[in-house]
Amino acid sequence: MTQLKKARAGIITPEMKIVAEKEHVDVENLMERISEGRVVIPANVRHNGLVPCGIGEGLFIKVNANIGTSSDRVSLEEELAKLKTAVEAGADTVMDLSTGGDINLIRKRVIRESSVAIGTVPIYQAVIKAVNDKGALVRLSVDEIFEVIERQAEDGVDFITVHCGLTRAALESLRKQGRITDIVSRGGAFLTAWMLHNDRENPLYENYDRLLEIAKKHDVTLSLGDGLRPGCIADATDRAQIHELMTLGELTKIAWDQDVQVMIEGPGHVPLNQIKANILLEKQLCHHAPFYVLGPLVTDIAAGYDHVACAIGGAVAGEAGADFLCYVTPSEHLSLPTIEHVREGVIVTKIAAHAADIARGNRYAMERDLMMSRARKVLNWEAQMKYAIDPVKARKIRGESPPLEEDVCTMCGKYCAIKQVREYLSPTFRDRNR
Amino acid sequence: MTQLKKARAGIITPEMKIVAEKEHVDVENLMERISEGRVVIPANVRHNGLVPCGIGEGLFIKVNANIGTSSDRVSLEEELAKLKTAVEAGADTVMDLSTGGDINLIRKRVIRESSVAIGTVPIYQAVIKAVNDKGALVRLSVDEIFEVIERQAEDGVDFITVHCGLTRAALESLRKQGRITDIVSRGGAFLTAWMLHNDRENPLYENYDRLLEIAKKHDVTLSLGDGLRPGCIADATDRAQIHELMTLGELTKIAWDQDVQVMIEGPGHVPLNQIKANILLEKQLCHHAPFYVLGPLVTDIAAGYDHVACAIGGAVAGEAGADFLCYVTPSEHLSLPTIEHVREGVIVTKIAAHAADIARGNRYAMERDLMMSRARKVLNWEAQMKYAIDPVKARKIRGESPPLEEDVCTMCGKYCAIKQVREYLSPTFRDRNR
Repeated sequence: MTQLKKARAGIITPEMKIVAEKEHVDVENLMERISEGRVVIPANVRHNGLVPCGIGEGLFIKVNANIGTSSDRVSLEEELAKLKTAVEAGADTVMDLSTGGDINLIRKRVIRESSVAIGTVPIYQAVIKAVNDKGALVRLSVDEIFEVIERQAEDGVDFITVHCGLTRAALESLRKQGRITDIVSRGGAFLTAWMLHNDRENPLYENYDRLLEIAKKHDVTLSLGDGLRPGCIADATDRAQIHELMTLGELTKIAWDQDVQVMIEGPGHVPLNQIKANILLEKQLCHHAPFYVLGPLVTDIAAGYDHVACAIGGAVAGEAGADFLCYVTPSEHLSLPTIEHVREGVIVTKIAAHAADIARGNRYAMERDLMMSRARKVLNWEAQMKYAIDPVKARKIRGESPPLEEDVCTMCGKYCAIKQVREYLSPTFRDRNR
Repeated sequence: MTQLKKARAGIITPEMKIVAEKEHVDVENLMERISEGRVVIPANVRHNGLVPCGIGEGLFIKVNANIGTSSDRVSLEEELAKLKTAVEAGADTVMDLSTGGDINLIRKRVIRESSVAIGTVPIYQAVIKAVNDKGALVRLSVDEIFEVIERQAEDGVDFITVHCGLTRAALESLRKQGRITDIVSRGGAFLTAWMLHNDRENPLYENYDRLLEIAKKHDVTLSLGDGLRPGCIADATDRAQIHELMTLGELTKIAWDQDVQVMIEGPGHVPLNQIKANILLEKQLCHHAPFYVLGPLVTDIAAGYDHVACAIGGAVAGEAGADFLCYVTPSEHLSLPTIEHVREGVIVTKIAAHAADIARGNRYAMERDLMMSRARKVLNWEAQMKYAIDPVKARKIRGESPPLEEDVCTMCGKYCAIKQVREYLSPTFRDRNR
């Protein structure tokens, strides 16, 4: 029985209890939101050692980190180190997007060593197998796709990206309107190539029931992918994107009928002024299923700093109601991320999620800011380091520029405003300090 | 005659012509906006070699970088290197906030070597002089304050931060409501100490006419400072802040009566959901004078990554109508920035400004994104590097992880989505590519 089915039956699972406690929410209320599909707990029954995490309405905004090998760079050790780094930096989930080396082995090791929910994009492995075995991705058979999905589900994958809404009709929308960057989703590009070459419908759409059966059996949460997400801001919110999103809404209802948990994936490259409308569209068209945004990147020119372009978009998306932010690293559009880039990507995306949690009025999110500010007021540097989102980096920067007087920093030195206020104004202000 | 006076007289200055051309706006229209105080061109008549820059309504959002020594770290060479780095990275203006070493010499050299407008906070130098000469900042005389302002104006400073709105009444608002971090503005803290100790009104408020006389003579733009800006998100948009802002609105009108150009400085630490209201308040209360925001930082806990917290706030502020973003570096709250931190601070703030320009519908801002996206579509890496906001960093990241096939990157290797689309879909899609 999936978490969704149990919630509908009024059963409070151990996973729900853990999530409710972490989130400071009432467990009955959480159960109700799960039963309505507004919250998911991706938790494959076979993922031993998982500490469950809830994603959706009324919860802290979550952050995902992508790791995984590519055909160009394969190191199991490095990917396991990225997993460790991501989780330590605060990632709530990790996706293993490996496309190089022994993909089965890497995935198994990642799941075994991960306490956070693990996601994958099974079509990657299916395509690679077809290329290796048959010389071309277009020769992939439908059975082979589902064999890979089944195997990954049996390994304990908690959520899978499946581009089920990328239909021939949606492609026709794309063709008619035209785009600058066409298709930038890897899974979307694979499926499109397969569909056009074989003159057939999307196998994940046509055989959606088969997918739901696997998902139901292992309680794999479906992350309905956006194969037609815009690859540049000029393509944002176009017919193709919205066409696919509408189909994802239909598929959400069908999954719910089978008690399968669902999230919706969203863009992508989106100008700042279109983000709010994108969140609204997802919530309305997909019946308030949790929204998992891949960015959004608010400009196309930030190569090397795409994590910052993503933090801007992610914060605004989060404030508008996005539930789950996929990180972007400084390597985006340039290379596979290094371990240090993984760390940086997670931290800036956490900042975005945190800023949005505060904006949404989550009072538990504000507590740490208050502690930090009180530590600043009394020039308590140890406490400031403790409450910093990344104590290691904060300590490093301060340590590299030691102040002459211990209680200040080298920015203002002895002319520190807080110190001045303390010296001159405390008697006046003291009586009414909160 | 100031730019404002000339605009009111219907005179198109060489500065207006240069700005109009850079901004792709009609020069008559620009002149009108200057005459209404909605646009300023900070251009001290004595700043030789200045390439003028416009700030305000209808123009690209501008970015300022703060440099300068502190009592703890003094190196003229390093500050000149920061100036060069900031301008190369795209800073539109630079503020020299030096408080250590030979402040007069540093300022003169910075002005001489800068093609961008230079700003200062004269109260810093006045206070340091009082501390050195008389042993305490509270012994500073009113004449000494104005001597410093006059000297800096004569040196060619283009805009000065003056905390004229920090009145005793505003301080009383602060005292009554209470705050977590009281005062975090250095100038604000100095003036407050002086006012409370001497039991007198703010000398910059009481002698505002004297200030206007100096500003008018050299066409120094006044950047009316927010000495009571919130130092943590819990203090944002409180009575003290708004009290000061209302006074700045009054002072704006008085300055305009004397043909003096004015900008308004704004917060600070502000939660994401309060930024839009803060912009609206400034525009309404200060009669659409250009708004220069110091952040805003959307969380207090991002030490080491405050440039990212600032990019999030700056982008949202820019979209809502802020005209001028003061950068924050990774060193904020920790130390004086290094040259590398200056560079990083400018670039992420430029990303925020650019994202906001796009959101505001500035079609010239979108051009570069379009060029970048077209380069991506055809896998033209040289062009991608050219259009990247920081070609050096983009090239470095790509270079450190060379792909096996030249036309892709190591993120996806041979499974690059764009390459797949090109191989399989081009015949289908080609006919309608824009």
